[in-house]
Amino acid sequence: MPETRLDIDRIRAARRMIDPVFLDTPLYRCDALDPALGCAVSIKLETANPVRSFKARGTELIAGLLAGDGAGAVVCASAGNLGQALAWSGRGRGLDVTVVAPRSAPAAKLDRIRALDARLELVDGDFDLARERAAAVARYEGIRLIEDSQDIETCEGAATIGLELVGAVPTFDAVLIALGGGALATGVGHVVKALAPEVEVICVQPLGAPAMTHSWRQRRVVTTGSTDTIADGVAARRPIPAVLDDLLLVADDAVLVQESSIMAGMRMLLDHAGLVVEPSAALGVAAILEDRDRFAGRHVVTIVCGGNVDMDAYHRWVGVAPDHTP
Amino acid sequence: MPETRLDIDRIRAARRMIDPVFLDTPLYRCDALDPALGCAVSIKLETANPVRSFKARGTELIAGLLAGDGAGAVVCASAGNLGQALAWSGRGRGLDVTVVAPRSAPAAKLDRIRALDARLELVDGDFDLARERAAAVARYEGIRLIEDSQDIETCEGAATIGLELVGAVPTFDAVLIALGGGALATGVGHVVKALAPEVEVICVQPLGAPAMTHSWRQRRVVTTGSTDTIADGVAARRPIPAVLDDLLLVADDAVLVQESSIMAGMRMLLDHAGLVVEPSAALGVAAILEDRDRFAGRHVVTIVCGGNVDMDAYHRWVGVAPDHTP
Repeated sequence: MPETRLDIDRIRAARRMIDPVFLDTPLYRCDALDPALGCAVSIKLETANPVRSFKARGTELIAGLLAGDGAGAVVCASAGNLGQALAWSGRGRGLDVTVVAPRSAPAAKLDRIRALDARLELVDGDFDLARERAAAVARYEGIRLIEDSQDIETCEGAATIGLELVGAVPTFDAVLIALGGGALATGVGHVVKALAPEVEVICVQPLGAPAMTHSWRQRRVVTTGSTDTIADGVAARRPIPAVLDDLLLVADDAVLVQESSIMAGMRMLLDHAGLVVEPSAALGVAAILEDRDRFAGRHVVTIVCGGNVDMDAYHRWVGVAPDHTP
Repeated sequence: MPETRLDIDRIRAARRMIDPVFLDTPLYRCDALDPALGCAVSIKLETANPVRSFKARGTELIAGLLAGDGAGAVVCASAGNLGQALAWSGRGRGLDVTVVAPRSAPAAKLDRIRALDARLELVDGDFDLARERAAAVARYEGIRLIEDSQDIETCEGAATIGLELVGAVPTFDAVLIALGGGALATGVGHVVKALAPEVEVICVQPLGAPAMTHSWRQRRVVTTGSTDTIADGVAARRPIPAVLDDLLLVADDAVLVQESSIMAGMRMLLDHAGLVVEPSAALGVAAILEDRDRFAGRHVVTIVCGGNVDMDAYHRWVGVAPDHTP
């Protein structure tokens, strides 16, 4: 059992706090991807739910605990998906939700946050600047700050995906996990290493946002000055020390992929799996594309973690042109 | 309890025969569709599985029974999805599967049938001609013929979707079901009318393939000379009398929609739900688009029944142009 901050019994208990609409998501072999990728690929699909990402597994936990404690308001920084999920979970429990997000976040994400009745504050900067601003809002207003990946509920909520993976038949050889702040990777990684340690846990990050991967490789926090990737959901510069400590205990590898591979992965998931995914959700396929020999003949699960994307950008990335004629 | 050929206890028992990968599929509110459609829409997603349609619920049942009886071979006619599902279910149970399909069926469907090791026979004609040919193959080879919608397992397999709908919270006001041969409509319709009779069961068929709808309205079998629709999965000309009898007992309405509405529905499911669907799976959204007043303010479930589509045709239908430049 890896000695991270996470706890298997709490993760099992977490399932009871999460709306079932976010649990037991599809996990299925996608044969049509095999010829193109040279390995057997299974998809864990986290997009077929009301917020189209895995993030609600964590926010359900948070909002349930806060509502139980009588809290009335909460604030988080978000690249878009956490904010949408917190808005959804908060709305059902009477919480006032404030989301601080980069102005450059996909309109699809920002629009959905607004539509879910959250207060949305935009910052002229990136996710790490939004984190600073959210912390300031929390201090000034005296309300609870939710810190993605830092707050254990965000990791243990994501970890419930791991429970659904390790119970699966047939078993698999490796799981590919998008790596940003680390909630998904430490969550799923903890459960996999605790209950199916023979499965390889491989984290995937864009070359243009490599802070956590560099940190994992050097076993110390490495920050970067900027990010340059279309994968907005994982574009972070400043790894959190406690999250890195956990990641060092559960990840077998962390790899970096090129933007062109992310786009090729999105196109493959569209053409061969019929899935519209955001760039972060294509990181796993991108990793296979960049290192086919490593995965040849193996059974690999890739977590399709989000599908919130601006369609004009999406069509541009996957190489189909929207027809705006009436 | 409607007096159809179907039986609730058998349908409940059927769940134990079906591989869990096809059961308990996502059912979720898709708020992003509401503004465009003027009602609350929930999606029942039948595409996130190894065959990308609901048809395996029935073929799992059939293949399980046949394998238990020691049968070695089976043949079906199919527009593509039943054949793919039967190939999948048969492969796992050592059945030799022959599929007779129209040569004009989507290449995506035919390729997948071949990839699943089924014998594929193509006919120069439509689905109803394939039905004749499959019957001849069965007589000539002395093997079991599977007749979609006629064979009760195809209906009761599809009916397991109904069990998953009637147990849902929140409840809903109407369910929109693609209508072709009638297995899905009679299956889901039977369960809904048995267990949640207040829910409106609305079948939707293309104007270009209206045989079953005309039959339902006239309460007698009406055949048509040809079909003209992109919705290949429901393009049938000759309703089966026993299936019509069942449909008359469970459907509250059957409506016809235009091709342009089907394409608009596919585009909406792409843009607002991130779902790549085949035309048959967009019939429900098309029905809302053509009669907004009927659905205004109501909570409607639409069954997204299949996602097997040729991507070039798909992009043409939804109005985005594939970019073939390298």
